[in-house]
Formats: sequence, C-alpha cells, structure tokens
Amino acid sequence: MRGAVIHAAGDVRVENRPEPKIVAPTDAIIRLTATCICGSDLWPYRGFDPVDEPSPIGHEYVGIVEEIGDEVTTIKPGQFVVGSFTASDNTCENCQAGYQSACVHREPIGSEGAQAELMRIPLADGTLVPTPDMPADDLIPSFLAASDVLGTAWFAAVAAEAGPGKTVAVVGDGAVGLLGVLAAKQLGAERIVAMSRHRPRQALALEYGATDIVEERGDEGVAKIKELTNGLGAHSVIEAVGTQESMMQAIRSTRPGGHIGYVGVAHDVELPGEELFFSHVHLHGGNAPVRRFLPELVELIWNRQIDPGKVFDLELPLEQTAEGYRAMDERRAIKVLLRP
Amino acid sequence: MRGAVIHAAGDVRVENRPEPKIVAPTDAIIRLTATCICGSDLWPYRGFDPVDEPSPIGHEYVGIVEEIGDEVTTIKPGQFVVGSFTASDNTCENCQAGYQSACVHREPIGSEGAQAELMRIPLADGTLVPTPDMPADDLIPSFLAASDVLGTAWFAAVAAEAGPGKTVAVVGDGAVGLLGVLAAKQLGAERIVAMSRHRPRQALALEYGATDIVEERGDEGVAKIKELTNGLGAHSVIEAVGTQESMMQAIRSTRPGGHIGYVGVAHDVELPGEELFFSHVHLHGGNAPVRRFLPELVELIWNRQIDPGKVFDLELPLEQTAEGYRAMDERRAIKVLLRP
Repeated sequence: MRGAVIHAAGDVRVENRPEPKIVAPTDAIIRLTATCICGSDLWPYRGFDPVDEPSPIGHEYVGIVEEIGDEVTTIKPGQFVVGSFTASDNTCENCQAGYQSACVHREPIGSEGAQAELMRIPLADGTLVPTPDMPADDLIPSFLAASDVLGTAWFAAVAAEAGPGKTVAVVGDGAVGLLGVLAAKQLGAERIVAMSRHRPRQALALEYGATDIVEERGDEGVAKIKELTNGLGAHSVIEAVGTQESMMQAIRSTRPGGHIGYVGVAHDVELPGEELFFSHVHLHGGNAPVRRFLPELVELIWNRQIDPGKVFDLELPLEQTAEGYRAMDERRAIKVLLRP
Repeated sequence: MRGAVIHAAGDVRVENRPEPKIVAPTDAIIRLTATCICGSDLWPYRGFDPVDEPSPIGHEYVGIVEEIGDEVTTIKPGQFVVGSFTASDNTCENCQAGYQSACVHREPIGSEGAQAELMRIPLADGTLVPTPDMPADDLIPSFLAASDVLGTAWFAAVAAEAGPGKTVAVVGDGAVGLLGVLAAKQLGAERIVAMSRHRPRQALALEYGATDIVEERGDEGVAKIKELTNGLGAHSVIEAVGTQESMMQAIRSTRPGGHIGYVGVAHDVELPGEELFFSHVHLHGGNAPVRRFLPELVELIWNRQIDPGKVFDLELPLEQTAEGYRAMDERRAIKVLLRP
C-alpha cells in the first residue's frame, strides 16, 4: 500500500509500505477514507523533534473497517469509524475517569502512520466509535476533525471551564485554536476572544462564534485581554500552541481563580513557580483524551449541529502529502486533508 | 509597644516600635491575644529572601478590637476577631469569586508586623471575622491557626478536591501539611497518606486522620504512593513545602486527571512543561484566600469540631520571639505561638 514516511526534517515521502496485519486479537484494520496533517506533525518536519530513522507518520483518521481480530466484539467490518490518536481500552480506571489518553494499556497511533491507505488500530473496541450509518461525503472532513483537532479543542474548552457567563480567550489560531472557539461557543460561553493576526483565520473564528479579535501577542495581547475584562483577565483561557510565550500569554490573560486548558504540545516550556503561585489560576491540559468526547462529537456532526471540517482549507490526494506539509509549514493552509 | 523586627538573616529582635494608628477610615486597631511564627517567616530568617532593611515581621493574629475607623460598620471595639494575612475588601469581583488573596484592593498584612502587641488591620470589614463571643482560652491556638495555616491547608485540600472516595497524599509535614490532613479528613477523604519522617509529626498526622505514613521522599516517595494506589497515583495531592523537589513529588504522585493543591510558597521552582503536559494533573494553588473559609472554620472551632491548635507545640512570651525562630529553624518545634 501507499503511505507517508518522514525521512528527516523537511523530507516527507509517499512510498510503498507493507500492508498492516492483525497483530493482537483486539486489533482492527481500517481502510482510510481520509487522513490529514497535524500541527504536531510539523514539530519533526521543522526539526524541533528528532527523526532518528525513516518513520511512518500521521495519527488522524476516519475510515471503513476491513478486518477485525478474534476478540473484537463491538466493531464490525463495513462500519465507518472515527478514532482518537491514542488507542485505549476504555475500561481501565484512568479511562473510566475520562483520561483515555492515559489509559494503562494505551498505545500511540502515530507509530502506525495514519497518512496511508490502510492502518492497524489496536484496542479497537475501546478506541473506535462508529457513525450511525455511512456518512454523506460532505461530513467526512468534520468526522476527521473529531479524530484529533476537534476532540483536543473540546478538551481544552472543558479544562478551561468555558461555559455560560464566561469570557474565554483563545491563544493560537491553528485548527485547534479555531475549534476551541467552536467548542467554547457550543459550551455556552458568553464572550469569546480569538487571538489572531491572520485575516482568513479571524474570519473563521468569527464564523465559529468569536465575539472579539485581539491581534496583539505576548504582554500586549495580555493587556488587551485585561482591557476587555475590567482589568481582571478572562475566566477561561484555551492554550493551543505549546511554546513558552503562548503559555505565559495564557497564564497572564487569566483572572485569579480562572481556568486554563492547555493542549499545545509543550516544547522547551518551563513555568516559573512563583508567578504561577501568585496568579491563582487553575491549570489543566495535556494530550487530549479525545475518546471521552467522541460519542458526543459524532452525534453533533451527524446531526449537522457543528461544522468543524471547515478548518480544512486544502485537500490533496495522498500522493501529494509532501506539498501538504509545505503548505502548512508556510502557513498557506490552516489544515490539509489527504485522500488516500 | 513591643514588637519583633527582622534585621537580617538569623537576627530577629523584639524592640520598642511606634504604636499603630488608624490611617484610613476602613482600618481597625487590634490588641493581639496571640500571634505566631510562620514557615514562610523562615524564608527571610534563613536568608532565602533578602532583608533590605530592618522590618516588622509576622502576619498571623487573633485579638480584640481596640479602635475602628469612621467607615468600619460590621466590626466593633471589644470583639474578638480572626483575620487573614491579606487584607481584602471582600466585595470586589475577585473576592466574590473566592479569591480574597487577589482582592483588587488587597494589602499584605505582613508589612504591619503581627509579632507585636498591637496591629493595624486595613479593610477591617472585609478582612476580620468575629467569633460569636469571647472564646475560652484553650480555643485561642485554634483560632490563631485559622488565621493562616489552617485556612491555607483548607484551601489546598479544596484545590486538591479532597473528598469522599478519594486518596489524598500530603507532601510536607509542617503545620500546613498536618492541617492538610485535618482538612482532607473533614472534607470526607477515604484515605490520607502523610509523607513524613519525623515521629512527633507522624503522630499528629495520625491523630488528625492520616491512614498511612510514607517516610520516603522524592521519587522513592512517589513509588510508595503508586504502590498504595494500584500503580495510578493519588486522586488528590496537597503540596505544602514550595521547593522544586516537593512540587515534582506532588506532580508525580498524582494520577492522570487528579488534582494538586499547592500552597508552599514557590522558591526557585520551574515546572517542566512537557512532564506537566503528559501528567494530566490539575494544578491549582497560591497564597490562600483564607478569608473565603474563615466563617466556616470559626464555626468548626467554636463548636470544638476540630482542634487545629495542636500544631503549636511551643508557646513563648513575645519577648522570646528570637528563641521561637531558632526552635522552628532547627525543627525543634512544628509551630511557635507567641503571647504578647
């Protein structure tokens, strides 16, 4: 089959890769209907994460079940399924507490490489959520978004306790930040401030429910948020970047007792203890337990109540994956959908 | 009047100081019945915080109101009062949200120097809580504890979401840590693990409701907590030290989705973003909004439902304040009560 392999920073190629096989009796094999490129795939692409050897890449997927292992009971061949980027049994104590990304039997999907035609999904019963029936083609991008960026943004909004009466600030205008706006809106937030200086992203943020746009960054951005909130800061802040600057912008934009949901993968971040101490913020985040939210998100998408698929502003055939990476790296595209 | 002054690291003296006067119409002057030495007073005493000039010291107090400013309406001369170490108006948006230590009009009490005979309390209406009547002498230590260490420990336990069905680990066996055990017990925690290697402190922890003692520290302590919790970590962790080691011990002792309440004043703490990200913990803390809890704590003490005063294991006249600092510095005493 054809699948993407990252060889080094800046070097992603679509090659012939061996077809995945059932390894454990809890596995399923799915044929991908669509896959995509994640902001976190850009970390190795940009050389911030090392690439020690050529590796399959990609961890977002929707598709049709081809084959199941002997112990798979709830997932059936022919079903259209969405899954998270962390395989989880969905039964252990951490899963039951809603932290499937910390499942005691978790397996990262990334090593399987979702930017491909076929993919092995471990722990299929716990990981995959089927749609009620075969979805219309125009819903595919939205279901694909649920696989990571929407689920991640939803977790951030829940961690930030976005809800009625709250002012929510969103740091980061990538797909996760934009869907953080959508999630905050769905959760009933009163005021949603998108922090973005890019016109097309501002436009989508406004479409998703942002009430205010702040173009400033860093301490100037913080000052703007304070200005909008009677000097106090936002009740809820969604952090969707993962740098030192974005984390400090999030902490300083939050009022005492407010909540930060941070989901940008932390790179070289060190949080100063004393400033955090006197900030009185609540801090929660991490790699999102997307599986917790999938049943609800699948229903919202199936019923056309949300349209997260709009974050895909470029669609390419799988063979042009390298061009997709370039488009995202150069910020020519918010998020690239790939069709195997 | 007589009052303590810190001149330099290791040098605290009781001297003649000018009597405090009403400065603002919202002030009250109280005559201290008792005061004490805080773990955080040891930071400058040990040279970890600079002492730029001789300064009054102390921020914990109970006493009788002597005089009030023209605009004080709810506090009356002759009342026995408890107050927090941060003066707050108790009406601003931060106060109403329960973060009186981040009151927009806050004033630190420390600069007034509570280790003295008399003290000026700013924002008296918002800061002070009177007892129902003049308390019996044996209740004085408990009310004094409410002024800081109990209120701080209570905040930590609430921030850590200690409650029914929860396993709570407590990092730190000073007065705050020990009262964290008491608070967790009062909040209904199922299992309370005190981390302490000092026999008298272990004994008080057990008396306050600890079900387990762990003597190991750092990663060995973490391993013990994991051993006691099916490999997952505690649901709730109270951090009551404020060092890099204690914060990492707290983070690593908490299960995914668990809560840390941290109240040890952070000194040279830098939290590694990536480890925090993948830990999935909730982090909340800071200088405690003691005022939020004072009405409830005063009632519990008045009704003799809790006995936090037991953390005072040495009582000295105010004139012997210097000996009190030495006893706490050398860990000969958990906490020293001073009688002016």
